[in-house]
Amino acid sequence: MEVVRAVYSLAVDEARVSERAAALALEQTVELPRSSVRDPFVEREIVGRVGAVEPDSGGGFRVEILYPLATTALDPAQLLTVLFGNASLQDDVALVEVDAPLSLVEALGGPRFGIEGLRAATGVEARPLTCAALKPMGAGPEDLADLCRTFARAGIDVVKDDHGLADAPFCPFEARVAACVAAVERAASETGRRALYVPNVVGPPGVLGHRLERARELGAGGILAAPLVLGLPAFWELARDAGLPVFAHPALAGAARVAPSMLLGTLFRLYGADAVVFPHAGGRFPFDGGVCRELADRLRRPREGLRPAMPVPAGGMSVERVEEMVGFYGADAILLVGGTLYEAGPELEARARAFVERVHRAAEETAE
Amino acid sequence: MEVVRAVYSLAVDEARVSERAAALALEQTVELPRSSVRDPFVEREIVGRVGAVEPDSGGGFRVEILYPLATTALDPAQLLTVLFGNASLQDDVALVEVDAPLSLVEALGGPRFGIEGLRAATGVEARPLTCAALKPMGAGPEDLADLCRTFARAGIDVVKDDHGLADAPFCPFEARVAACVAAVERAASETGRRALYVPNVVGPPGVLGHRLERARELGAGGILAAPLVLGLPAFWELARDAGLPVFAHPALAGAARVAPSMLLGTLFRLYGADAVVFPHAGGRFPFDGGVCRELADRLRRPREGLRPAMPVPAGGMSVERVEEMVGFYGADAILLVGGTLYEAGPELEARARAFVERVHRAAEETAE
Repeated sequence: MEVVRAVYSLAVDEARVSERAAALALEQTVELPRSSVRDPFVEREIVGRVGAVEPDSGGGFRVEILYPLATTALDPAQLLTVLFGNASLQDDVALVEVDAPLSLVEALGGPRFGIEGLRAATGVEARPLTCAALKPMGAGPEDLADLCRTFARAGIDVVKDDHGLADAPFCPFEARVAACVAAVERAASETGRRALYVPNVVGPPGVLGHRLERARELGAGGILAAPLVLGLPAFWELARDAGLPVFAHPALAGAARVAPSMLLGTLFRLYGADAVVFPHAGGRFPFDGGVCRELADRLRRPREGLRPAMPVPAGGMSVERVEEMVGFYGADAILLVGGTLYEAGPELEARARAFVERVHRAAEETAE
Repeated sequence: MEVVRAVYSLAVDEARVSERAAALALEQTVELPRSSVRDPFVEREIVGRVGAVEPDSGGGFRVEILYPLATTALDPAQLLTVLFGNASLQDDVALVEVDAPLSLVEALGGPRFGIEGLRAATGVEARPLTCAALKPMGAGPEDLADLCRTFARAGIDVVKDDHGLADAPFCPFEARVAACVAAVERAASETGRRALYVPNVVGPPGVLGHRLERARELGAGGILAAPLVLGLPAFWELARDAGLPVFAHPALAGAARVAPSMLLGTLFRLYGADAVVFPHAGGRFPFDGGVCRELADRLRRPREGLRPAMPVPAGGMSVERVEEMVGFYGADAILLVGGTLYEAGPELEARARAFVERVHRAAEETAE
């Protein structure tokens, strides 16, 4: 029987761990006391089974639960219910690992472009890609297009919207995409290299399909979306239908009792992200180096049926940290410097160019 | 200028609170250092403003941030980005309060039926409504329909699916709804009172519209959906389009650094829940009485442009606790007893009847 393997960290002592693990397996499937499960089909094919139980470093236990695949109905929303629906309401449990069987991997689909598709789209073969963000919310399409052209001329590979850029009267989505794509084209006619412009897509599901279509028609090079803001099932549909590389943004993804490297590294990839933005250690967010390394590893490690995805370390990075980041992530990464570029004011293009050159140089030196 | 007022709990000391609050207001809007915000429109109409700052009971501070309404683009997804997108990734901040201006309330719409609509749909005027859940995952449509008929005959007002019931080969959504609606009808022909059957709706956005339509056509009395599993924006669309009372389930809503009474009580109502299921104190979940009282109050308190919604305390409740719960929640509530009813085995109908009678009696005694 195919199973989804989930691992939880349980903050309980040894005397209680067996009972607590069994309760968790029931809670996430039949939501009934064991004694009330009488149907042999339900016992055999539905109830979660407790697997390995071992002490963890925090004084609690790592507990493996094996869920029959049938419980998920191969539905990207139902999968979340099974993995952590009710358990999320109990404060002694955290979800730390999910391992999907191949048929679930294929149902979810994972990255449609992945690292290879992003390299093909940008024409960058072996070094890390560079990325900058269009800011701030409140700027109009023409102002953002000017910035876009500046970054593209400076040699930035991917120019993405800030994740706060929605579809507002002061900056309508279509006008922004049209202006920024035109800016990228103008820069390409000057430099001979075309940057990827990646607009942010946000909204209730009913508007996403139309935005996606317009982004494609207008010539966007990818889209940015926040899976936890849209909801993972809506993100999954977006990735399935995009026809463009999908960059995942971590907004709203941090407050959960779900291991961040697993959520952003494993689940975002499974649900279809081609590139995942996350805060690198030492910026404005408390992810440490261990979490970042693990996250990048989860995005890139070989996995049957699943393309590798690009890590996009960000979150208050600066040009000064380029060498460190290239050393840390290697070539299969997209380095995103956001707000700190803007401190250069009128020297923005020179600053962006310095970023680009440092990445290229650091990659060459690492390769030597 | 209309503003969305959000209150955060910040775990910082007095020396740092002003700086931290200002950084939060920037992070959630322009995502730039203050010195890089140069456009007067952005300064005036976009950047969040720090409002009241006062010490909280935990040694940190309650900080009010006022977001210009324009930042939300009146978009139910974008609102989440502004309220807690990047902040969710920082571990010293929790979202504890959201206060939407009337135009945002009207854009979101809130409960379409609310307490009044649920009373009209069930024909119950002044006492708490009773609710039971169809379990377990793995049971087929006919088994669940038998249970449904049993509960309806016992006088239960609302019979809802367990939130784990999806659209699986062993229990397809349409077959289940058809069988359970027929069961409710049969019971109604015996008792003269018609229970509301409320199926669970789960899936990616693209399937929800069709399920909703089938649920309506087949005669469901409402729908159950988990806003955090579907994603709040998808839930919002579902509530907007449902044409039936919408019951919100708390699955996946618990692991967030967002105050639970605010998330379930204020945001679920704003996004359109007519009734909200949540764990009552003393069950399998760690919500205490204070949180439950606050949650119920947030669902029911008068608010311009917004119908009141029904609290549905649940989560391991038992028939023995009926009097306590009626005393706690009063008449405007739906009392849900889930798995513990099933401990009665073959005596299920008698047990359900005892639950119903105790609620009716407790309500009469309270009213006297």
